[in-house]
Amino acid sequence: MPQLPIPADLVEFLEQPNPLVMATVRPDGQPHCVPCWYDWEDGRALLSMDAARVRLAYIRRDPRVALSVLGRESWLKHVSLVGRIVEMYTDTDLADIDRLAYRYMGMAYYDRARPRVSAWFEPELWHEFDPMKIASEEPARG
Amino acid sequence: MPQLPIPADLVEFLEQPNPLVMATVRPDGQPHCVPCWYDWEDGRALLSMDAARVRLAYIRRDPRVALSVLGRESWLKHVSLVGRIVEMYTDTDLADIDRLAYRYMGMAYYDRARPRVSAWFEPELWHEFDPMKIASEEPARG
Repeated sequence: MPQLPIPADLVEFLEQPNPLVMATVRPDGQPHCVPCWYDWEDGRALLSMDAARVRLAYIRRDPRVALSVLGRESWLKHVSLVGRIVEMYTDTDLADIDRLAYRYMGMAYYDRARPRVSAWFEPELWHEFDPMKIASEEPARG
Repeated sequence: MPQLPIPADLVEFLEQPNPLVMATVRPDGQPHCVPCWYDWEDGRALLSMDAARVRLAYIRRDPRVALSVLGRESWLKHVSLVGRIVEMYTDTDLADIDRLAYRYMGMAYYDRARPRVSAWFEPELWHEFDPMKIASEEPARG
């Protein structure tokens, strides 16, 4: 996987409200993954988790995380990132989850009662797969 | 995450040609994930990888894998699975990658030269998120 910086056209892709899957590792070494919302800002991804999520404990133990971002129009185009969570805090006023809910749903987050935790992911490596670039540049992928 | 069996309505969901993300763990413990094709048969997922993929070595070292399957119409609905690769073999006549290419693209796989490896994933735990079920059953998720 190539190192930073992430090329400008991929940053533009990451800035779209695309589906994302976050992968973490359980203390016993078993990987775990789940789709979730994100936003992209200054080279980092904002993620939000219900404060009761088990994977918050996984991340506190080992902040290494991987993300896959799928194209909205065609998921044949995708970008995967390897990196780590560099910052976590309680989303006290729900500003971050509202930011994500507006980005994906056009409205504030529906649940105002349950506490949320925000996490910022910083990439170290990236990998792109784009079928439109394959024909000219690349051999088979997958 | 609930244990097996996977409920019938989720098996039906897994049988659709949905986007999938596979998560593996690098030897140093860093998770890695990537979107890929799959098929669902008899409670297992068929995956296919280019024989040059680094993650084949990861899986041979540690067969524990996680998968997230996203709804095609809305990825707000998704199913995530934790389990392991229980069988791997060279896809000698490209029958498995052709099966996946027909499932997703309606045609045989375009690259007949590069070797492919098939891997069968067996789930141990599953987790569903379905916004249509939340209103009546569940608190906030994510």
